[in-house]
Amino acid sequence: MKLKAKILNIATKGPYIAILNKVTAAKLNIEPLDRIKIRDGSKKELVVAVDFSYGKKEIAENEIGLFLDVSDILGIRDNELVNASIIPKPVSLEFIKKKLDGHELSKDEMDKIIKDIVNNELTEIESTYFVSGCYIHKLSLDEAAYLTEAILNNGGRLNFSGKTVVDKHSVGGLPANRTTMVITPIIAAAGFYMPKTSTRSITSPAGTSDVMEVLAPVSHSKEKIMDIVKKTNACMVWGGTMDLASADDKLIKLERPLNLDPEGIMLASILAKKASAGASHVIIDIPVGPEAKIKEIKKAKDLAKKFIVLGRRLNMNIKVLLTDGSQPVGNGVGPALEARDVLSVLEGHGPVDLRDKSLYMASMILEMAGVPNSYNKAKNILDSGLALHKMKDIIKAQGGNPKVSSSDI
Amino acid sequence: MKLKAKILNIATKGPYIAILNKVTAAKLNIEPLDRIKIRDGSKKELVVAVDFSYGKKEIAENEIGLFLDVSDILGIRDNELVNASIIPKPVSLEFIKKKLDGHELSKDEMDKIIKDIVNNELTEIESTYFVSGCYIHKLSLDEAAYLTEAILNNGGRLNFSGKTVVDKHSVGGLPANRTTMVITPIIAAAGFYMPKTSTRSITSPAGTSDVMEVLAPVSHSKEKIMDIVKKTNACMVWGGTMDLASADDKLIKLERPLNLDPEGIMLASILAKKASAGASHVIIDIPVGPEAKIKEIKKAKDLAKKFIVLGRRLNMNIKVLLTDGSQPVGNGVGPALEARDVLSVLEGHGPVDLRDKSLYMASMILEMAGVPNSYNKAKNILDSGLALHKMKDIIKAQGGNPKVSSSDI
Repeated sequence: MKLKAKILNIATKGPYIAILNKVTAAKLNIEPLDRIKIRDGSKKELVVAVDFSYGKKEIAENEIGLFLDVSDILGIRDNELVNASIIPKPVSLEFIKKKLDGHELSKDEMDKIIKDIVNNELTEIESTYFVSGCYIHKLSLDEAAYLTEAILNNGGRLNFSGKTVVDKHSVGGLPANRTTMVITPIIAAAGFYMPKTSTRSITSPAGTSDVMEVLAPVSHSKEKIMDIVKKTNACMVWGGTMDLASADDKLIKLERPLNLDPEGIMLASILAKKASAGASHVIIDIPVGPEAKIKEIKKAKDLAKKFIVLGRRLNMNIKVLLTDGSQPVGNGVGPALEARDVLSVLEGHGPVDLRDKSLYMASMILEMAGVPNSYNKAKNILDSGLALHKMKDIIKAQGGNPKVSSSDI
Repeated sequence: MKLKAKILNIATKGPYIAILNKVTAAKLNIEPLDRIKIRDGSKKELVVAVDFSYGKKEIAENEIGLFLDVSDILGIRDNELVNASIIPKPVSLEFIKKKLDGHELSKDEMDKIIKDIVNNELTEIESTYFVSGCYIHKLSLDEAAYLTEAILNNGGRLNFSGKTVVDKHSVGGLPANRTTMVITPIIAAAGFYMPKTSTRSITSPAGTSDVMEVLAPVSHSKEKIMDIVKKTNACMVWGGTMDLASADDKLIKLERPLNLDPEGIMLASILAKKASAGASHVIIDIPVGPEAKIKEIKKAKDLAKKFIVLGRRLNMNIKVLLTDGSQPVGNGVGPALEARDVLSVLEGHGPVDLRDKSLYMASMILEMAGVPNSYNKAKNILDSGLALHKMKDIIKAQGGNPKVSSSDI
């Protein structure tokens, strides 16, 4: 049928939605969340889910309301007549139902679900059923591997060919765990690449990005980030602008309202992000304690095993450290105080626990990357001021003031 | 904070949403689906969930995009400054999480979830987790009773005081099961009230409303429906405009993408709708067969028991009939052919199976309502033409042509 386009002044970057008047929908026998394919006369076409409008004021009969996301892609203008036809629902909905019913998904099924989520072809209601299924029925190790590969294959990648890329990740939940910002300049000063991208914090009040933002901007284009890393061997940026693992960002949005963090999705999310940045050696820090996300040593060991097995399937060398998560590391909690702790450790004073934990982890990473006598190497880089110097290079490359010192904050 | 309102020309009758620019949200430390309370300076206020806009073109920094649903309620105009403050998430999200984790919900918890769904205070993502929990973990009989009461207490009611209201319901899935349209005029002619409201069809191609629509309009205001029933003892209308059991309509929308129909929600949905119309005697028809929704007799008996126990808790007298669902009843499938079948049975000819099944069920209803010798009574009403006459009264009251006969269709 032909419908008159009404461009709605919103872009959500979310699933593609078109709005039909209830009367139009009834005439066409369309129910909410049915799919229609829109063509603008040229060759471009797009599948959108239908939602209803009820008044006549906005979307009248025989009109179709289009968000800017849709009208921009198709180049449709207000009042233009567009061709729309009803099409079947995406096959990925069957796979989501399968998971909700407790069955295991195959590699292809997982890939199709993630592809459709990334391409905005599933509504948030539909993707929420996927999260529900993964949460209640858990993912098998196979499924977690398929999900990792699916996120990886349907997202962007950083390519630092020829360089050894290492990384670390802390399984969240522990406030003020700012070792990353001490470790990164040590590793970068030792000659390895360590491009740190973080998502928004899911379960803790401030993430590494928030703390780094006290010292330098953290939102950069993918090109700029590549540039920063090539110049300094490292970066500490917010990953949201990079389209790395973009399925992941969409799933996290759905998990937030109930603070869900299904283990299988968490494993896949972390490993896909590391793999998309080309990391070959990764340290995973699992703080264990009553305040941390993982409260029991048994659970932590089980999780560690899964990280290692999954890493092997992705050709990634993974070492897991179970650390004491019984209290915050450093003196302060909150972006400014945590940034001050980090700088003071790099300057040669500062909280001893943050220094010790960072040195320990840095030496593990160096050891994995083949550096002999790695603890002394890390200690020398920190004590000689090389790490501080490297930190200032990174701050400068990201557009901050490299003359900053801990006493300024 | 103060934000400048941008009224978005959409009303969805769905959950209340406000759109913030990503930059504004980051400054205020708001994540997608966080809640803000909007005040317009007067005493009215409304809680909305936040979604993000990404470009500057539509919702710029320090602006807030409002759907017509929200701006109409608060009387906010374009460019007006509105006060917005961040508030905690609704407590019903904890209860939804509890169900998702497999725990049983209390009466108060169930009521709060449904109240928030009806009041548009939960986003569709959040309500979808509720449906997921009910689907995977099933509802206990207690929970199904609480859900029925919650839907009932948070929806509209019809009040026919002093009259005995009876009803019938067929558990869907069987095409062309048009007994309702033969039974209703028989019962109405016998002097009982039978206000039939139907939802849109969930699992079968055409519902009673669609078939009745061939003979008369089925969308009427609540007042008009009360009027039709008072005039004729019955109606056969679409229930969507009535705000009876409105939680139910919202849940059905969420179930459709995966064709879910969780038993507990189905039981509550049917019984709440009957109770909201004041029905004291209800026949439930469960067709059993390979083509029907219920395929095994054991499953049907189990379901029957639940209907009866739940009905007792709601002071409702329920009788369940397990009928042969192995083939369609009547000659035709599709609104027009099914309407013709119905009229021809009322005229004294027509498919024998439809006549027999309808008479049998009508007599059961009359028996429940205390009519002696109920089968002969029903048969007399049909054979004497009283039922046809009553059908024409109903068609006329709903605005159709009472002179219609089966040969016209």
